Amino acid sequence: MDKNTIQKAFEKLQDDICNELEKADGKGVFKQDLWERENNGGGGRTRIIKDGNVIEKGGVNFSAVHGKTPEKILAALGLSESDFFATGVSIVIHPKSPMVPIIHMNVRYFEMSNGIFWFGGGIDLTPHYIDETDATFFHNSLKNVCDRHYASYYSKFKTWADDYFYIPHRQETRGIGGIFFDRLSETSEKTKTDIFNFVLDVGNQFAPIYTELMNKNKSLAFNSAHEKWQKVRRGRYVEFNLVYDKGTKFGLDTNGRTESILMSMPPEAQWEYCFDVEKGSEEEKTLNLLKKGINWLNQ
Amino acid sequence: MDKNTIQKAFEKLQDDICNELEKADGKGVFKQDLWERENNGGGGRTRIIKDGNVIEKGGVNFSAVHGKTPEKILAALGLSESDFFATGVSIVIHPKSPMVPIIHMNVRYFEMSNGIFWFGGGIDLTPHYIDETDATFFHNSLKNVCDRHYASYYSKFKTWADDYFYIPHRQETRGIGGIFFDRLSETSEKTKTDIFNFVLDVGNQFAPIYTELMNKNKSLAFNSAHEKWQKVRRGRYVEFNLVYDKGTKFGLDTNGRTESILMSMPPEAQWEYCFDVEKGSEEEKTLNLLKKGINWLNQ
Repeated sequence: MDKNTIQKAFEKLQDDICNELEKADGKGVFKQDLWERENNGGGGRTRIIKDGNVIEKGGVNFSAVHGKTPEKILAALGLSESDFFATGVSIVIHPKSPMVPIIHMNVRYFEMSNGIFWFGGGIDLTPHYIDETDATFFHNSLKNVCDRHYASYYSKFKTWADDYFYIPHRQETRGIGGIFFDRLSETSEKTKTDIFNFVLDVGNQFAPIYTELMNKNKSLAFNSAHEKWQKVRRGRYVEFNLVYDKGTKFGLDTNGRTESILMSMPPEAQWEYCFDVEKGSEEEKTLNLLKKGINWLNQ
Repeated sequence: MDKNTIQKAFEKLQDDICNELEKADGKGVFKQDLWERENNGGGGRTRIIKDGNVIEKGGVNFSAVHGKTPEKILAALGLSESDFFATGVSIVIHPKSPMVPIIHMNVRYFEMSNGIFWFGGGIDLTPHYIDETDATFFHNSLKNVCDRHYASYYSKFKTWADDYFYIPHRQETRGIGGIFFDRLSETSEKTKTDIFNFVLDVGNQFAPIYTELMNKNKSLAFNSAHEKWQKVRRGRYVEFNLVYDKGTKFGLDTNGRTESILMSMPPEAQWEYCFDVEKGSEEEKTLNLLKKGINWLNQ
């Protein structure tokens, strides 16, 4: 399981997901930008879709970069100089309809010349309006992927996602969470290939899960009040990504390609001072479900 | 020059500025929320204006808080336990018209029970479209305030603003800068009262400067392309405030009142992948002027 195999698998994952999303959207087409790191090594394929039937703005990005390991990582590991290689696929999709959820997915692999390596990633869903059936479908699907590989994964990674996709200053989760994992490395029970297979399985589940949610919700009616709420929720998405998201911060700090990193920003967001929701409304119901620790699985 | 005098002066400054802005707007009226810190000490008066003739969304906030000095500040100063008191006025105004600039102003005072104290603050302007005459008027006005107090202030604080109001990942300044200063304390040449008088003078210049810019530009024609650009620039404003602004970060980290801190967010912002400006356009001209080190003063 060498880095070239992993890189090729991630490139294919990007291709497959773009194909499936274009098919499900029926109009939007991905536009690709190839980029290279200046004075460094490697680059990526940024693929952006916009103004589709279902997708208003989205990105499915692949990158594979290498060079000197950033100081921050070396310091955290108590290591001195080392080269690194990192590859991954990152996705954020902002749908046009407030009835279709925002989704994010990431799978990544990191290795250093000293032999240290790990995988990370996750999928999380941010419905503007939480539909319990969809939430259960989403979490059941993630549990199924996890269960195929290791019995404790879903419970552990679900809790990790609850903690990670959290906006402390709003005391809200970003959405209904999902799974999040980082620094997965080989153990006595799992080889590198085992972990890779899990990560790739997560990646491969993205398209069937999200296209199902697109198809189920894309034709639901909505009005300008729903759109207003969508823009407020997108504002919270911006707050999470710019204030707390470690991937975004790391990318901006290490001089990454800004337009590829900030493809996660919504097409349009609103901020209203002390925006309030009506008692008993769907908006209030959603707000009350933006909490950690909810069990979304089928009972 | 005790803390009560400073607090009273800042309260009056808030009152005066709100009055002047309401007069210049002609329609918008400030709505006040009084708030208190839970389990801590002090509170504030958040005043929000929206849907005015000129101002789309803005806040003029006063606060005076006290308690145990946050660990971060103590560590930075190499001090152990100490109580603190902090008071200030913070303003951000987002006008409706893309032809009227966004403005920000802050004056603040901080003291600790061990006798250490300082003042900080600044004013900076973020035109959606840079008008050189306005920029010169703005910087000349700030230079005049500075010059009344100390000959080196303008040049020093102008450079400080260029460095502070900078968005590294965009390689752009937030706007045309202004003045920024922090940790001003007494020296052999300046008493505490001298510094206080300077800071208050800065605060008092806010209303005449900004209402002049409102009046001059509020009736200029604009179209949807100008509004589009305005929303893109507001997106950059969001990026600066959420990623880099120290006041915002400090507020969110120390459990400040979120709605008062994030009153700085624009009413609506847009993000478009690789948004491009036309060659020779007004948008391109503005982009080319979002640089550090421009001398905006009258030659």
